[in-house]
Amino acid sequence: MPRDLPSSLAAELSALLGPAGWRTDEAVRRAHGEDDSRQWAMPDAVALPQDAAQVAAMVRACRALRVPIVARGAGTGTAAGAVPFDGGVVVSFARMARIVSISPDDRVAVVEPGVINGDLQQALAPHGLFWPPDPSSFERCTVGGNLATNAGGPRAVKYGATRDSVLGLVAVTGAGEIVRCGGPWTKNSTGFDLTRLIVGSEGTLALIVEATLRLVPRPAQQATLRAFYRDAGAAADAVSRLMRQPQGPAMLEFIDARAINLLRRNGSDLPEAGAMLMIEADGDEDTLPLALTALGAAAEGDGLLSLDVALDGLARDRLWAARRALSPALRSIAPGKINEDVVVPVSRIPTLVAGVEALAQRARLPIVSFGHAGNGNLHVNILYHPDDADESARAQAALPQLFDLVLALGGTLSGEHGIGTAKRDYMTRAFDVPTLAAMRAVKAALDPDGILNPGKVLPAA
Amino acid sequence: MPRDLPSSLAAELSALLGPAGWRTDEAVRRAHGEDDSRQWAMPDAVALPQDAAQVAAMVRACRALRVPIVARGAGTGTAAGAVPFDGGVVVSFARMARIVSISPDDRVAVVEPGVINGDLQQALAPHGLFWPPDPSSFERCTVGGNLATNAGGPRAVKYGATRDSVLGLVAVTGAGEIVRCGGPWTKNSTGFDLTRLIVGSEGTLALIVEATLRLVPRPAQQATLRAFYRDAGAAADAVSRLMRQPQGPAMLEFIDARAINLLRRNGSDLPEAGAMLMIEADGDEDTLPLALTALGAAAEGDGLLSLDVALDGLARDRLWAARRALSPALRSIAPGKINEDVVVPVSRIPTLVAGVEALAQRARLPIVSFGHAGNGNLHVNILYHPDDADESARAQAALPQLFDLVLALGGTLSGEHGIGTAKRDYMTRAFDVPTLAAMRAVKAALDPDGILNPGKVLPAA
Repeated sequence: MPRDLPSSLAAELSALLGPAGWRTDEAVRRAHGEDDSRQWAMPDAVALPQDAAQVAAMVRACRALRVPIVARGAGTGTAAGAVPFDGGVVVSFARMARIVSISPDDRVAVVEPGVINGDLQQALAPHGLFWPPDPSSFERCTVGGNLATNAGGPRAVKYGATRDSVLGLVAVTGAGEIVRCGGPWTKNSTGFDLTRLIVGSEGTLALIVEATLRLVPRPAQQATLRAFYRDAGAAADAVSRLMRQPQGPAMLEFIDARAINLLRRNGSDLPEAGAMLMIEADGDEDTLPLALTALGAAAEGDGLLSLDVALDGLARDRLWAARRALSPALRSIAPGKINEDVVVPVSRIPTLVAGVEALAQRARLPIVSFGHAGNGNLHVNILYHPDDADESARAQAALPQLFDLVLALGGTLSGEHGIGTAKRDYMTRAFDVPTLAAMRAVKAALDPDGILNPGKVLPAA
Repeated sequence: MPRDLPSSLAAELSALLGPAGWRTDEAVRRAHGEDDSRQWAMPDAVALPQDAAQVAAMVRACRALRVPIVARGAGTGTAAGAVPFDGGVVVSFARMARIVSISPDDRVAVVEPGVINGDLQQALAPHGLFWPPDPSSFERCTVGGNLATNAGGPRAVKYGATRDSVLGLVAVTGAGEIVRCGGPWTKNSTGFDLTRLIVGSEGTLALIVEATLRLVPRPAQQATLRAFYRDAGAAADAVSRLMRQPQGPAMLEFIDARAINLLRRNGSDLPEAGAMLMIEADGDEDTLPLALTALGAAAEGDGLLSLDVALDGLARDRLWAARRALSPALRSIAPGKINEDVVVPVSRIPTLVAGVEALAQRARLPIVSFGHAGNGNLHVNILYHPDDADESARAQAALPQLFDLVLALGGTLSGEHGIGTAKRDYMTRAFDVPTLAAMRAVKAALDPDGILNPGKVLPAA
């Protein structure tokens, strides 16, 4: 339930941030209250600070009156992490969107949080470098949002997710203090690693105002293998083989039998199969053929039905088109979709897929699984009609069963989307009481009055 | 100043741990009071627990009486992190040294902290896997010590240091609670990253009782390039070139002019040069020649004097022999050595080397720099005669000047050894007041009574 801001605070923040940095008109507030979870709540105001000092002053002012602050990137999150359920101030970093510096010799970029992921990649390309995180929303999502959720993407299997790709931060704690941790080095044993603690904390520990990012040399060429298998077990065995040899894949995506059938029904020319892997290799004109040979050999084995290779851009696009057609195809079955980015040990993928199939039958709902197999990070999509009360109830009821299955397999709730409020109430299943208590203690250490993104990530004690 | 343990506590812990797990005889205590910093203090007792429950019970008992607990691996640390300056109980993990499991399909091992790094590598070799951290003490040091200091080694340039190589932990906080964080997955956006917070905290936040380690496929072959340069600037330019291309080196070690001259005087057949790089490539019989070609091309450039290649084991041993002869050679100049593992951005290596040379002239002491150039992590060795009071004083006086130089170059205090007490008092130069306050708050959150390794890492407020 949004509440009104104290007028003294509104006046103080309006003076601090100026008319372009302090917006209380309803249209702006309304537009800053939702994210891709399709949940929504009305903030009392939207702040658009321009520098770290403004952020720190704002946090101090809000803290004095216990007013919530919810950090927001581009609102592409799927776990409601940016939705201001308790009202208060939504902080947009749209005016802190500078690429501060790119240092090719140190393979480091310093950026403000509002930079769009895709814009950063474009700026890096002329230097022959890239930043590993490549969420599917890269054209819209911000680096700040990537940092908040520890975002990943297909490339993470070779190059790491966001937390693996951040070297340092400047951040404002819930106490309104500016902390500076890490820096432009890839090795650091100097004090506690606040950087990786704050990354993935979804705006609950500190507001990131600057990040030093680890950059990676860009391979000259890519090629794609597409492999069809008899069943998920045969595909998972191939995943283990692909990951166990030194020439690892640059991407390794899994698509289950239901997804293949769905694409076939929607006009795709995929063959009948129990599972499909998309395997990307990268390198140069000398190394790429060797990588393809090694990956192709690892893809072969019991249960392989067929293996295609695509060397040039057009052929690769054709292979990847089926993968890209999946999300629209899901909507053709049912308008409602609960997409959970669960993680299991790679060797447990077949058991997960079998368990999801059993769950689909019990729930009498289609459930489609695909995603980042090399990381054991599958997107499990429960499809339903939101207007059908019974289907909606069955979809919701399937969710705790899915998480129980994942946790029983030694997995966890989220590989790249984060917890927000969407998975918050399952945290008590993923962690025992002492571990959640330790997380709450860390939260209290950096945000003593609990004003940063209240109610997110951690369930009430 | 060690103090006596309360007799009630001694009785309780003796009963808990049994005669083999609770040692108060002077010889045992004496042997557990020093590390490779060559500092020493007498603990009041040595505990050798056998499982997590014993560790938790011990911490609770000590906490009730505010008795310090100092975790200890093999005592190979160089920053006095394991020295019990305040007395209390030293905890050895020598009886928690099991490799719990190796899962080749998940590329994961679960180990207890007392496992010797080299023993783990031997157990992994038949699976074609290794664990990246390779400190020079690998034959003696423990995984627990590697975790505590975020240890590195030459291989970190390609495969990451300890923090990059840990997926999950079971640890006992200073409150005596067992926390379980992370797990056998390479992607995780589920709650706060306590794993990487505890790694590198040198036993000040929690006692690690089990770790889930990320394993890497072992390349079949290695080859070595050795390049001599006119000066450190030319070598640093080569380091940037080597690191900016996709086929990165598996090791990339720098040796400065003083070290080269020292080795030459000691009978090595090295040519005269301003700097030397040791560049390791790895791969298989097809990819290794390509990696060597790419690295060789990147090593070439203005200032390159000569380039050797060693393909087979014997030739490689010959090239690396000079690097290995360095530490003994340093002792031939002077028996005293202050070895600081500072870090700077790679592009600042020449400025660091020039600054160290100027510092050596001001201090009238030999200072020799070498180390992990690809990470900007150089070992700066200040050489002196400990029996010469004037030399000792000049060596000590050079230390703050070295750290000021490193920090002015945008670097930091330690890349792999940790802070302990050796660098603790320089932490106020490396971090501002709010950042140190945030670290202290996190310490208080996990170790509310400050019993875990008191006085280490963080200077008094």
